[in-house]
Amino acid sequence: MKALIERIRKEAVYIGNGIIKVDGFVNHQIDPALTTAIGREFASLFAQAGVTQVTKVVTAEVSGIAPALATAQALNVPMLYARKHRPITMANGFYLAEAPSHTKGGVVQLMISPEYLGESDRVLLIDDFLATGSTIEAVVQLVQQSGARLCGIGCVIEKVFEGGREYLADLGVPVITLAKIDLEQDAIVVR
Amino acid sequence: MKALIERIRKEAVYIGNGIIKVDGFVNHQIDPALTTAIGREFASLFAQAGVTQVTKVVTAEVSGIAPALATAQALNVPMLYARKHRPITMANGFYLAEAPSHTKGGVVQLMISPEYLGESDRVLLIDDFLATGSTIEAVVQLVQQSGARLCGIGCVIEKVFEGGREYLADLGVPVITLAKIDLEQDAIVVR
Repeated sequence: MKALIERIRKEAVYIGNGIIKVDGFVNHQIDPALTTAIGREFASLFAQAGVTQVTKVVTAEVSGIAPALATAQALNVPMLYARKHRPITMANGFYLAEAPSHTKGGVVQLMISPEYLGESDRVLLIDDFLATGSTIEAVVQLVQQSGARLCGIGCVIEKVFEGGREYLADLGVPVITLAKIDLEQDAIVVR
Repeated sequence: MKALIERIRKEAVYIGNGIIKVDGFVNHQIDPALTTAIGREFASLFAQAGVTQVTKVVTAEVSGIAPALATAQALNVPMLYARKHRPITMANGFYLAEAPSHTKGGVVQLMISPEYLGESDRVLLIDDFLATGSTIEAVVQLVQQSGARLCGIGCVIEKVFEGGREYLADLGVPVITLAKIDLEQDAIVVR
């Protein structure tokens, strides 16, 4: 996606150790026009890839919410985000999966209420980053627990050097990313 | 806002102790069309209230992100969400405020990077709930630390019985909410 790739080239900062700062338009401050365009791009690319009749866009809090909402707006289906802390309103059981925590060490728990995801759902999973794929794998587990059908995985930015695409290959669904970042001689290359 | 009020009347569940479950369209699962309409309604109502030239919509993660993004889309200005955990990319100092935590007890910290908020900004603060006002007060403190000007506060749902509107009155800015929930004889009344 040209506008996204150009924005990353212009504003992303490579901090080292594989960490790329895109806080100015993806992770902390959000560019609404770019986010709207990202949602439309996912809707268009998944349609081209044969992913149709999606009933729900699923993501994990926090940073997946903006691109997932924009995709849900484009598809006009509900967006559901996995919670990391069980709210008091999630009283009647929940699907639960664990993913390694990048910021705190240990694991982070992800929860979805069975009220909003079930066997009749066709799910598009959207997140901001495809890195190792382990957070996405945890959301996939939630989808599988619900009996819903996973139809595709879309991530705004792929960190190619972390190998998430290979990790998710066994799922047998289209994995679409809008910008791919690789490391060459300790600098980032964006495609 | 009629569509929102009707949705609350139809789907919200009163759990007791002042807790209202709107997980089906606000807090866990998000209705994209309703969220888009909420953003447009805030843009329209704040313009009518004389709040103009907003440069930034500010909220706090997690559940403020969806309505804040929709408002930012309607106004076509960036949306910035206060983080509860400092990401590794937030390296060069940050504004910090604390709010009582409803889920965990104790306090939750909220952080904003000075890179994205400063003296030239005119801020519209958007959140999902106006309850006691203490989370919003913490975000207001972040805005004040930055030197930006707070121009208005918008919340999707006001829990009238928790008194947040009185708590925020001293700020001297318009406080606009789209649905007002009160408690009468231990049942909710939505206006």
